[in-house]
Amino acid sequence: MSDSNIYYRNYNNNHYYPSSSSFSCCEKEGLYKAILSRRDVRSHFISDKNIPNDVLLRILNAAHHAPSVGFSQPWNFILIKDKSIRQQVKESFLTEYKKSISMLDNDESKQEKYLSLKLEGIMESAINICVTYDHTKFGPFILGRTSIPETGVYSVCCAIQNLWLAARAEGIGVGWVSILSNEDLQKILLIPEHIRPIGYLCLGYVEEFAAKPDLEKAGWLHRIELSEVICYEKWGYGRGTISSSDS
Amino acid sequence: MSDSNIYYRNYNNNHYYPSSSSFSCCEKEGLYKAILSRRDVRSHFISDKNIPNDVLLRILNAAHHAPSVGFSQPWNFILIKDKSIRQQVKESFLTEYKKSISMLDNDESKQEKYLSLKLEGIMESAINICVTYDHTKFGPFILGRTSIPETGVYSVCCAIQNLWLAARAEGIGVGWVSILSNEDLQKILLIPEHIRPIGYLCLGYVEEFAAKPDLEKAGWLHRIELSEVICYEKWGYGRGTISSSDS
Repeated sequence: MSDSNIYYRNYNNNHYYPSSSSFSCCEKEGLYKAILSRRDVRSHFISDKNIPNDVLLRILNAAHHAPSVGFSQPWNFILIKDKSIRQQVKESFLTEYKKSISMLDNDESKQEKYLSLKLEGIMESAINICVTYDHTKFGPFILGRTSIPETGVYSVCCAIQNLWLAARAEGIGVGWVSILSNEDLQKILLIPEHIRPIGYLCLGYVEEFAAKPDLEKAGWLHRIELSEVICYEKWGYGRGTISSSDS
Repeated sequence: MSDSNIYYRNYNNNHYYPSSSSFSCCEKEGLYKAILSRRDVRSHFISDKNIPNDVLLRILNAAHHAPSVGFSQPWNFILIKDKSIRQQVKESFLTEYKKSISMLDNDESKQEKYLSLKLEGIMESAINICVTYDHTKFGPFILGRTSIPETGVYSVCCAIQNLWLAARAEGIGVGWVSILSNEDLQKILLIPEHIRPIGYLCLGYVEEFAAKPDLEKAGWLHRIELSEVICYEKWGYGRGTISSSDS
């Protein structure tokens, strides 16, 4: 490993980052590879392959270095391996899942496709992580959170995305289970009322990552063209085109 | 550039990702370097250095490949270069900034420190990007959004974090301006009522990235120890320790 691998090696060193300003081609490749090949994994976890502590800490440290409004770092991570706790979470999933099925009662073909999808890996994954938001941390005055209070939650989401990308680079799949009741999670995990669960993640090693997202492959929805999500100067202007002017 | 640089080269190819499962050491280094050396940039933008279109599109494509609940891809990106539009956004900042100062009337030393900080680079940056959330896209039934509707917004935040990391790898600083009124943004950018602004970002090349976050350097808040944000099985259990068991 060369001297330049200072970020990857010193994952638990919070205090020293050389301000090197440029990325090598291979380093850029690593970032774009993580972003473009990251998947939401709900199946094909390698059973009984634990995540070593140092790898898990590297992933959590990546999450902990997300941007946060006013440097408030409002996240917490509950690591869950206990099977009986996970079983309770799974039951919350099943209850919410049943409710969601009935919402498609007027569209039988979509309902059938929906029922064919695997939507969570709570029990099969190596570990579950509940990521929470604490609006009281360093509060009440948080710099930059005075006009738009939700920015605190946004910080937690950025942390989850860092975690997801780091896991991908480590060969670990992550599935975000959102068909859950937050009230159930608070009861099961003894989360205080003022703390809000944001994401419930299932992590584990996988043999490989699918070439496309499961829902794209299954024909559930299609990938939107990039030009369709971009506009210029004001809402809607120039959407569907890619501006040829220098930006 | 070797054949392995397929992700970095093919940034605008949405349809082909080889499912290579492992990362080289250098590729991992690239991801962790982006995560750990990313900064929230509010000053020191290199004036008059434009961002070439292909670089900007690579960054936006990274954002567009974020995870999204039910593959709903609910984001849009408004790219703003026009100075008169930016000036209006700056005025919204100034109004909200003034309001926030008065919230520290009972803590003079904190107020003084607050006043000394540079909090936005709206006019000096090369381009501004307003990232929005459209809950109607592919709706109303979005897979996985049935129990927790806010997950749609969470997807947009993941996209912003992808954008931020890609920009870092390209040598471009990003500053998220959150001292703004969303109502003002909607008026200035003609954003329809059902669309919600989530992040207002200022992007531009910088000479270098600071070794530490500005607010840490200024002594505004400190970096929390990683062990303090982790607990085991249930809320609060084992916080402040790092479990030595295999995870």
